[in-house]
Amino acid sequence: MNLILLENKDFVEPETVVVKGRRLKHLLSVNKVNEKDSLVCGLLNGKIGTGKIKKKSESFLEMTVTLNQDPPAPLPLTLVLALPRPKMLKRIIETVTTLGVKTIYLINSWRVEKSYWQSPLLDTDTMAKHMILGLEQSRDTIMPEIFQKRFFTKFVNEDLPLISKNSLRVTAHPKTSRICPVGINKETTLVIGPEGGFIDIEIETLEKQGFLSCNIGQRILKVETAVTFLISRLFS
Amino acid sequence: MNLILLENKDFVEPETVVVKGRRLKHLLSVNKVNEKDSLVCGLLNGKIGTGKIKKKSESFLEMTVTLNQDPPAPLPLTLVLALPRPKMLKRIIETVTTLGVKTIYLINSWRVEKSYWQSPLLDTDTMAKHMILGLEQSRDTIMPEIFQKRFFTKFVNEDLPLISKNSLRVTAHPKTSRICPVGINKETTLVIGPEGGFIDIEIETLEKQGFLSCNIGQRILKVETAVTFLISRLFS
Repeated sequence: MNLILLENKDFVEPETVVVKGRRLKHLLSVNKVNEKDSLVCGLLNGKIGTGKIKKKSESFLEMTVTLNQDPPAPLPLTLVLALPRPKMLKRIIETVTTLGVKTIYLINSWRVEKSYWQSPLLDTDTMAKHMILGLEQSRDTIMPEIFQKRFFTKFVNEDLPLISKNSLRVTAHPKTSRICPVGINKETTLVIGPEGGFIDIEIETLEKQGFLSCNIGQRILKVETAVTFLISRLFS
Repeated sequence: MNLILLENKDFVEPETVVVKGRRLKHLLSVNKVNEKDSLVCGLLNGKIGTGKIKKKSESFLEMTVTLNQDPPAPLPLTLVLALPRPKMLKRIIETVTTLGVKTIYLINSWRVEKSYWQSPLLDTDTMAKHMILGLEQSRDTIMPEIFQKRFFTKFVNEDLPLISKNSLRVTAHPKTSRICPVGINKETTLVIGPEGGFIDIEIETLEKQGFLSCNIGQRILKVETAVTFLISRLFS
């Protein structure tokens, strides 16, 4: 835990917080904190700063906090991802949160297994847990927004033009010869398909909306590797 | 499975192979192959090409294979990694194999927990299994070599100068202001520390051997994310 993510309900006085539960357990057993230690803290969707430990016990931690710095800049990226299998989704959500992605669309596609949409992982609270782990890792406070879209064609034709307005439009697609651009560092909408890739008609639908199909070389990567690889490449 | 990785013992005739076990199971249940299908095949540490299914049953698959193409080019990278916790190591080995890394040193460091070195994952056969999954994913055939080095200072002072000769020397280190270079695309030796990072004396030891400490921005990434992120950045 590189940052203690605080919520308004943790404040007992304007500059005093009491931390319990999962965060306390982690701070005691992994970070091995002690009284008088100064730790990096941040308010969910707010500023970051430091917290000084006043009291430490087995059941709570009391800190005096000063929060006066902005969290790291978000990535200028909207990520559109064909729903991956649940185990992978969990890690991807955590990882892209760590990398600074703030807007994620999980969409359906021909090769997305229908059962994936039934996963309890897709519950708002469960997703939030994984995003919080990502924020704690990268010392960020701003929660990403995740949207679930179950109708591919409707989403691409009706929602995506607006979502991707004024941004670079890229689809990651192994079966194309155009190499993905490097170091774009401007507003981008990146669409990533399922394991096995989008089918031809899906690629055509995306191309009609201005999405360039680009590959990242001869090697076929797992979706979770491709996501990090592409983000690093686009924003290097 | 994007490539069926064959071994010499699979050949029953010069151009005929019989596939059983794990690969057969995967081909039947996931790839859902049929007789007359053409599949991408490769010989372990050899050429790649195609295999045409002649006979399919519940217990074996017989194919006629033609192997006449080179596998994808390896990355010009030697990866030196402080031993991560076993669960993460498994995924990292698979991922870096997918990305084309062929030489990996797993080293000790102050913040590597001693128990990690007892993990059954470090057995040669278990490591090989994860490398094979990585090769199958990225349609490669060349097995990486993994070396385990349990004495940090001895390794850095005695082995590393020779290992990294004529290569760019980089240590990934969050606590430095130098930003990691982009698009190097030449022989590189990349050293990545444990969760929590190298301690100062370790960084100094590496710097004395010419290793530039570089960071990848304000965000602190998990080792498994950092590995992919750095490789994408160095070889974009």
